[in-house]
Amino acid sequence: MKKMNTNPISGMQELLPEAQATFNKLKNKIGEVYHRHGYLNIETPIIDRCDILLAKAGGDTEKQIYKVFKTAETADEADQALRFDHTVPLARYVVQHENDLTFPFKVSQIGRNFRGERAQKGRFREFYQCDVDVIGRGNLPIYYDADVIATLLDAFSRFELNTPVLARISNRKILSGLIAEFNLENKSEDIYSIIDHAEKVPLEKTKSGFEEIGLGSERVTMMLDFMEVRGGREEVVGKLSSMGVQNEMFLAGIREIDTVMGILEAEGYSNAIVADMKIVRGLDYYTGTVFEFNLPEYSQVGSVCGGGRYENLAGYFTDQTLPGVGGSIGLTRLFYVLNEYGLVKNQNAQPVDVAVVPITENELAYATEVANEVRKGGESAMVVALDKKLGDKMAYAAKVAKKCIVIGENEVESCSYRVKEFR
Amino acid sequence: MKKMNTNPISGMQELLPEAQATFNKLKNKIGEVYHRHGYLNIETPIIDRCDILLAKAGGDTEKQIYKVFKTAETADEADQALRFDHTVPLARYVVQHENDLTFPFKVSQIGRNFRGERAQKGRFREFYQCDVDVIGRGNLPIYYDADVIATLLDAFSRFELNTPVLARISNRKILSGLIAEFNLENKSEDIYSIIDHAEKVPLEKTKSGFEEIGLGSERVTMMLDFMEVRGGREEVVGKLSSMGVQNEMFLAGIREIDTVMGILEAEGYSNAIVADMKIVRGLDYYTGTVFEFNLPEYSQVGSVCGGGRYENLAGYFTDQTLPGVGGSIGLTRLFYVLNEYGLVKNQNAQPVDVAVVPITENELAYATEVANEVRKGGESAMVVALDKKLGDKMAYAAKVAKKCIVIGENEVESCSYRVKEFR
Repeated sequence: MKKMNTNPISGMQELLPEAQATFNKLKNKIGEVYHRHGYLNIETPIIDRCDILLAKAGGDTEKQIYKVFKTAETADEADQALRFDHTVPLARYVVQHENDLTFPFKVSQIGRNFRGERAQKGRFREFYQCDVDVIGRGNLPIYYDADVIATLLDAFSRFELNTPVLARISNRKILSGLIAEFNLENKSEDIYSIIDHAEKVPLEKTKSGFEEIGLGSERVTMMLDFMEVRGGREEVVGKLSSMGVQNEMFLAGIREIDTVMGILEAEGYSNAIVADMKIVRGLDYYTGTVFEFNLPEYSQVGSVCGGGRYENLAGYFTDQTLPGVGGSIGLTRLFYVLNEYGLVKNQNAQPVDVAVVPITENELAYATEVANEVRKGGESAMVVALDKKLGDKMAYAAKVAKKCIVIGENEVESCSYRVKEFR
Repeated sequence: MKKMNTNPISGMQELLPEAQATFNKLKNKIGEVYHRHGYLNIETPIIDRCDILLAKAGGDTEKQIYKVFKTAETADEADQALRFDHTVPLARYVVQHENDLTFPFKVSQIGRNFRGERAQKGRFREFYQCDVDVIGRGNLPIYYDADVIATLLDAFSRFELNTPVLARISNRKILSGLIAEFNLENKSEDIYSIIDHAEKVPLEKTKSGFEEIGLGSERVTMMLDFMEVRGGREEVVGKLSSMGVQNEMFLAGIREIDTVMGILEAEGYSNAIVADMKIVRGLDYYTGTVFEFNLPEYSQVGSVCGGGRYENLAGYFTDQTLPGVGGSIGLTRLFYVLNEYGLVKNQNAQPVDVAVVPITENELAYATEVANEVRKGGESAMVVALDKKLGDKMAYAAKVAKKCIVIGENEVESCSYRVKEFR
């Protein structure tokens, strides 16, 4: 028998209709929450120029990017690629349309991005990201850092997960200030990297990491103590303030995290947030607030959302200073994880509300009319127009719909019908 | 001043937030109508294997396809490409997941496809298509041809266009039967092509086209007469039946178009449909019903939707016979056209319902509370948290929102506020 390999490419999400309905519901909830919080939705092209996409990239990003070319071109001409995140196209968009936008620009983006990562379980090459960002011109009040986090927390609250979500918040100015206070600027990148990986390795490895870059035992102890600072706003602000560090950046960081968490507390999110100095967000471009969302009961899952403040969105494209703060839900990965651990309520297996079943062809016209009536009432309906026995039609109806309406001679004559629930 | 070229690549749609809101509204309406008619939504990966995508392609498709490769690969390794329509990936999907699907499988797909066409006004390289298809196993009743057309007409009716939409319907069996009756099978492709182009060229050119492929003057007259057959169901069925053609395929085609249009008439679409023998849908794979939607008051716009019946969806991938019928709204092009001719009502310029403006920082917490209250009531709300004078905050609020709520000392004290409409 003829049969080609019809698997999707490895690393691509492809769902059956029922799972797709659940996925779409989560996606629509995110979009609705973003909209309710006043974020304006935009879409950028999936294909963009390499000089834009790779303006500040390097390392893994450059290796993982998908370049595209038309068959008629030679590969050397390929100067276009698929976007690998929403942030770089957003920077281009904001510079391009600056005069038509109102700043602060509250913006949301929901769509697929592409990275040619090594295929492995739970890793995707084509994945939905759902971003919110606020872009200022010249400056951007710290309030918007809390606004982004509150919006993302609100989105998670609508998922009706069977497990709590915790937003872990830090501020890069605190660690930067600490590093400056102790004249460790030349080791800054190493220190960020060590703290960033600390949760994935034994404490001994973190300790020896600090030693290897030349920190004395007193500094190592201080760094390890600092990393462990975690808790409610007042507790953490107290602990950090009592470290006796005078650096202005350090103190500014404390004031900012105090403000951000204070706003979130006032919004009723006290139990969903924690200050946590282990959060640094890798070597990304963040300069102030940084955050990651975790599922504390499923620590193996890692981060399910992250983001932070960046001092300048589009430094590669314009001299205009455009500070921003944003965050992103990696929906494809999140959906995979939620299913893996049974954390999300699946949608009804029958996404169609009503199947209308004409007993013979003579009842087809009235069945169609009834289906349209059902639709006008707001439910979904399909006519089961099979050239088969009633039993087969009913079996089909029971598979695809929650309820059915059987239309026979009597129903046509009396212009009436009964709705029957399956099961 | 530093400024890179930040234009999107030519041929890509990129909208400002207000236009994006209108676009999204049309897209969501389509999705809602498809759902209401019982079509299950699926998404296939944007990247697929070339052997799948190009299994039956050739000509323009092959030239226009975007191949992709990772930077780390050499171009020769590129055996993956971006999908250029929804039909080929659907064929793969149905074969791959056949055992998990219920047939007839009513399915919808809404997403971006990619063709590296020559860039020109109103032509897009990256474009949304919104497809509905019904796939049968072994056979598929003719009813579903009407189901697809009714669903697409329903979608157009929700757009609230300022101009009527007309579905022009034909059936390929009629022309095929005519060709067979007169032993013109070896000229079949030419005849299809001449009729397909007839609306874009003068009548003389169509006539000489028939002459050039060797038709005698009697046959030419017959073909020209045939092409002009257009009208309501009874009129067209009458005209075609009176042609005296005995070919069984021809007669089957008449019966099918009679049935399809009869169902649509019963659904109240008499004024939105016309039988029209000029519709052949090019050299596509259709085998029965074919249709195109036009805006009769804007004939220069051409087709805004099209589709038809295909006897076998996935012949390249499996021996299983999977007949189908489907149609597609090319939303990106449609949206461009509707704007070009001012045919669609634009959404409100202020997609945010309420801006909450605290007079000083002291009112920020209560302002945030008020915004959350507004959201619970179902409206979108944002807090205007700018470090600026009240006048500047109000100017911002007026730009981004329809209504505002100003929060000062009195409001905080009394825990109350007033909503003010702008303009």
